[in-house]
Amino acid sequence: MALDATAVGKPLGPYVKEYDWKDAVLYALGVGAGFSELEYCYEKNLKVIPTFGVTAVFDVFFHAAAAAKANLTGLLHGEQELVFHRPIPVSGTLTTEARITGCYDKGVKTGALVTAESWTHHSGAPLFTSTFTLFSRLDGGFGGPAAPNQRPTFPDRPPDAAIDDRPAPNQPLLYRLSGDLFALHADPEFARASGFERPIMHGLCTLGYACRALVAHLTPGEPERVRRIACRFAKPLYPGTPIRTLIWRIRPGAALWKTVPADGGQAVITGGVFEYTA
Amino acid sequence: MALDATAVGKPLGPYVKEYDWKDAVLYALGVGAGFSELEYCYEKNLKVIPTFGVTAVFDVFFHAAAAAKANLTGLLHGEQELVFHRPIPVSGTLTTEARITGCYDKGVKTGALVTAESWTHHSGAPLFTSTFTLFSRLDGGFGGPAAPNQRPTFPDRPPDAAIDDRPAPNQPLLYRLSGDLFALHADPEFARASGFERPIMHGLCTLGYACRALVAHLTPGEPERVRRIACRFAKPLYPGTPIRTLIWRIRPGAALWKTVPADGGQAVITGGVFEYTA
Repeated sequence: MALDATAVGKPLGPYVKEYDWKDAVLYALGVGAGFSELEYCYEKNLKVIPTFGVTAVFDVFFHAAAAAKANLTGLLHGEQELVFHRPIPVSGTLTTEARITGCYDKGVKTGALVTAESWTHHSGAPLFTSTFTLFSRLDGGFGGPAAPNQRPTFPDRPPDAAIDDRPAPNQPLLYRLSGDLFALHADPEFARASGFERPIMHGLCTLGYACRALVAHLTPGEPERVRRIACRFAKPLYPGTPIRTLIWRIRPGAALWKTVPADGGQAVITGGVFEYTA
Repeated sequence: MALDATAVGKPLGPYVKEYDWKDAVLYALGVGAGFSELEYCYEKNLKVIPTFGVTAVFDVFFHAAAAAKANLTGLLHGEQELVFHRPIPVSGTLTTEARITGCYDKGVKTGALVTAESWTHHSGAPLFTSTFTLFSRLDGGFGGPAAPNQRPTFPDRPPDAAIDDRPAPNQPLLYRLSGDLFALHADPEFARASGFERPIMHGLCTLGYACRALVAHLTPGEPERVRRIACRFAKPLYPGTPIRTLIWRIRPGAALWKTVPADGGQAVITGGVFEYTA
């Protein structure tokens, strides 16, 4: 298989998502919030976890993959960035327009990348922008350009904070109700055909866990101060595996982070950036 | 406070609930299903847990309580019965009509009961009937009739099966997204005002756990064989407490059951009846 590089520049959307407090709460529960963060889970004084924004762009992922003719069986989320212009309201209509920005080749053994960006408005005003990379493991070697590689450099010291959590064994089944219905996260047969023992966590679900941890440590109780979150999904994670988000403050209003299995092993999310109003 | 006994006989509804597979899955996750019961949690070959039927009658509870002028602060679910005419389809429109059948007095120290019954149709055909009792702790002593008391007699032998489960600490926050938004299960202040340390499980959520256990043991993989489930909610249960459902087969196609805290203590659900196509 080969990516169709003529997809680059192609506009996608607009996508329209109406939502209310129940959607925000469903998302919060999908990324592990509970009574200890009731501000995300109860309609009274509700606040929205910033990464809820990804629920407005799920369609972009699949339409970008389809436009680039990526092989779905080998598809994984590669990188994700969200830049917030203001806090996400607890209800309303999100309108998203998107554009495919690149098709890159990492070689026949590694795979290919599809990148896209999108702009989401709420009630006519810009709310956030999203950029993402899809990693298409079966589409490498099509003769496309090499991928750009920009990674933050982590401080050579222990993290300033390490925050543990434990996604439930059924976490993907709940998370997917927020809109990402990709079979890899629910269907055992599809997961095996994709080379996994069983369905894996959505990388974006683990990102939601990380966002909760980052807010809890850096802007406690004030998710409205988050300005940017970005990361690279490095390894698949099986549901039920305990995770630990490591945080390094690098300057006022900015931190780097990664998420690792709490029991050891390679990072599942690397290159994390988190920016907030200090 | 006193119940308004003139509410008896009052018709309620019709209530119309449109639903699709996501609602059935959200309910299933709300009562603890996961990858080990994927037939309840994934749109491919989906089956509906019979007690999903209660989501069509949540409005009846609150409207019956309001019609009888019950004090919401003292309100708990007392008893519940569902009788199924056929399996619940994975999507469609449920139309429910209801009637208040009784206001009973258990004395000023104990409280009062409001009973009601309802009939739910799907696509014009009868699907199930529901009868329930609301236990209004603050409304006893209003001079109403004594409550009828019909309890099944349990066999004097150990149960034939004991099935363990563990609702998550945040279980009520998820369960309530299926429609029962009563503040007792989410709001710490409301829970304390009602005499509890913190929000408690919905009795109907625990009933959903029991129904899963009963199907798993008596009609494995075939919830469509369930004909009747009934029980009395005996004690409040805090989220996160491990539970055990005890099952006694009493004849072909019928069992009695109760749900107890797995670590010991008094039953949280008693008088359970379960009938199925043998």
